[in-house]
Amino acid sequence: MTGASNLRINADRLVSRLKELGRVGALPGGGVCRLALTQEDQQGRDLVVSWMRALGLEVIVDDIGNIFGRRAGRQNIEPVMIGSHIDTVATGGLYDGCLGVLAGLEIVETLNEAGLTTDRPIVVAAFTNEEGARFAPDMMGSLVYVGGLAVEEARATQGIDGQTVGDCLERIGYGGTRLEGAPAVHAYLELHIEQGPVLEDEDLQIGVVEGVQGISWQEFTVRGRSSHAGTTPMRLRHDAGLAAAQIAAAVHAIVTEIGGAQVGTVGSFNLHPNLVNVVPETARFTVDLRNTDEQLLQQAERRLAERVIEIAARVGVSVEVRALARFEPVEFDKRLVAAVEAGANRLGMSNRRMPSGAGHDAQMLARICPAAMIFVPSVDGISHNIQELTHPADLENGANLLLATVLETARSGANQEKQ
Amino acid sequence: MTGASNLRINADRLVSRLKELGRVGALPGGGVCRLALTQEDQQGRDLVVSWMRALGLEVIVDDIGNIFGRRAGRQNIEPVMIGSHIDTVATGGLYDGCLGVLAGLEIVETLNEAGLTTDRPIVVAAFTNEEGARFAPDMMGSLVYVGGLAVEEARATQGIDGQTVGDCLERIGYGGTRLEGAPAVHAYLELHIEQGPVLEDEDLQIGVVEGVQGISWQEFTVRGRSSHAGTTPMRLRHDAGLAAAQIAAAVHAIVTEIGGAQVGTVGSFNLHPNLVNVVPETARFTVDLRNTDEQLLQQAERRLAERVIEIAARVGVSVEVRALARFEPVEFDKRLVAAVEAGANRLGMSNRRMPSGAGHDAQMLARICPAAMIFVPSVDGISHNIQELTHPADLENGANLLLATVLETARSGANQEKQ
Repeated sequence: MTGASNLRINADRLVSRLKELGRVGALPGGGVCRLALTQEDQQGRDLVVSWMRALGLEVIVDDIGNIFGRRAGRQNIEPVMIGSHIDTVATGGLYDGCLGVLAGLEIVETLNEAGLTTDRPIVVAAFTNEEGARFAPDMMGSLVYVGGLAVEEARATQGIDGQTVGDCLERIGYGGTRLEGAPAVHAYLELHIEQGPVLEDEDLQIGVVEGVQGISWQEFTVRGRSSHAGTTPMRLRHDAGLAAAQIAAAVHAIVTEIGGAQVGTVGSFNLHPNLVNVVPETARFTVDLRNTDEQLLQQAERRLAERVIEIAARVGVSVEVRALARFEPVEFDKRLVAAVEAGANRLGMSNRRMPSGAGHDAQMLARICPAAMIFVPSVDGISHNIQELTHPADLENGANLLLATVLETARSGANQEKQ
Repeated sequence: MTGASNLRINADRLVSRLKELGRVGALPGGGVCRLALTQEDQQGRDLVVSWMRALGLEVIVDDIGNIFGRRAGRQNIEPVMIGSHIDTVATGGLYDGCLGVLAGLEIVETLNEAGLTTDRPIVVAAFTNEEGARFAPDMMGSLVYVGGLAVEEARATQGIDGQTVGDCLERIGYGGTRLEGAPAVHAYLELHIEQGPVLEDEDLQIGVVEGVQGISWQEFTVRGRSSHAGTTPMRLRHDAGLAAAQIAAAVHAIVTEIGGAQVGTVGSFNLHPNLVNVVPETARFTVDLRNTDEQLLQQAERRLAERVIEIAARVGVSVEVRALARFEPVEFDKRLVAAVEAGANRLGMSNRRMPSGAGHDAQMLARICPAAMIFVPSVDGISHNIQELTHPADLENGANLLLATVLETARSGANQEKQ
């Protein structure tokens, strides 16, 4: 592998692929809407698959629709996997997820051009429904891949539009086939935008991600009684919307009281019948709680549950809770994290260790193999937003660090001993 | 008019018409969805018009789609109008509005059977879009009728589904024609269910309605910044949904502090992009405030406006307010109210004077002629709900009191002097 340490990716080519993929599902005002398993997602997948084929990768689609592009190694052993996702939230940007997948393709093209074959195979993965914006839970494809969720259950999941994952997979032609045997991966690496403001604030080029926050997604359904907004005295009401609004306000109060890394969001909120002059009968809303500390995350959940009981009793409504997703905080592989850090230092990129505030496919892969992530700065910390932006120089740094780490990790032990 | 004081309506016939109209837009679990100017509203209108024609009434439709069925009087002078509406909220019942219109038809049929002609013409009116559940403001048809809103402006109004009143009127065949000259009405009477719990609580048969609460409908649009629910620290957020939830909670706090007749409702609440893992960028919600006292109603509006400014500043969002409807409290005509009360006493019906908590077409007609209303009890005070119910005996009482009041009011002054 002599000379490999001087190998660099082609930043223009990476940016050009990001832009081309960003035109699939592009929104009129900028940004992208490519919700999982929609027609737009299908078009994005088709484009990625066409690139994989053009680069000579063997394309495999499993039965939850994950796409794998495999580049053979010198030895037919466990591969190094580079992955992320290409689905977006409804008003997403060009980088969240896509960077990890397309940086993988850029590394493959760089190796192809250099005529380099690694000891281990390299697999570029695009996992299904990482965002969870249409189907819960998020990180569905990687969760199924590592055996954390039965594929039958995942395929039966109904989305916000009432359609199921399975039906949508078949409709867009990504129903795939069941992979034989357990997935065997030597190491998993994911390059991603930070989606937060820390790197930019501290003027750093690279985030060496040590782990991922724990995530708790709950859906609350409040049932009251609809009645006339003019004639029903306040004391005789059972206002589902009022209880929901008070609970939403309580989420914020609890989260700010706990402080530190604790965050909480009521992102979805729907009333029925949702009319100006009718006291709402039903309210359905979601609560997203995250913390790097599992104990504090549990405390937030507990305090919220207490407040919900109080508010429901005072307003005179019933409340039902459904867990949509629950993931404990994840620590990435210490040796792989150290390798990323050493690579950044060797390449002269300023960096810091940090946790990830968002969930990523890497945390699922961490269940079956050493995993780590590389973050690059997000302008203004904005993500899940059409203004999402990472400067080309930062994309280039991230992809070069990913390349260096892949090259190091893709050496087989046998080979290392021989060197 | 000898013998008229012994005249009674046919309760079975009235109930049977209420049930037949209730089958138009019937919901699977009971109740009715006949939102203004939908296909269901069209079918309901067609049924009412067919009944009017069968009763020998001259049918006139004005250019906001109000339907008038006219029964000639002995003299061609200003008519007594009996009216209400047949549109419903999305999950409405069989009585709200329909009772007033169908009691009018029942009175006409009773007079027809008795071979009685009143001095004054009698007009039975079904006004367009009283509920305001699809198009704001509510009481639109009667407001236009009395000259309170230009018909062009009303027809240009966009509904919650983006369609305009004018387009919908034409589509369902109730575009009508402009009536010549100012509407001239001698008196307006409206029989309606109470839609509140007071009469049932006090075991009374009749509510003699002295006036209508003032109504303030406002729509708030909160604009923040959408960002990632996991990676955006709480202090860096601009969460439009949080501000909206806090304002909704504040509406309740302000209203209960003011107390008395003050009520307040956040009935409609929508987030964008409305996804579990995205901090909401936009929130749009309505506030319905009502009070019989204009000063207190203004105080509620003022206090809400202050809280909105506070909350917007603290959360870091902008808030825009749009008035959807604003009606001052209305006092009905003292002599006509006294006539209703005297009639109830004469017929031996237990009664009390009361305000109306809901808006009604009668308050619009009160701008151009003496107007009054008769309330009958609502079981459990429930209305704007599929469980809305008024017992047949109460429907009968209300319609008989309406008949007695119409007969008295439809005497011309000239005739009274001759008697």
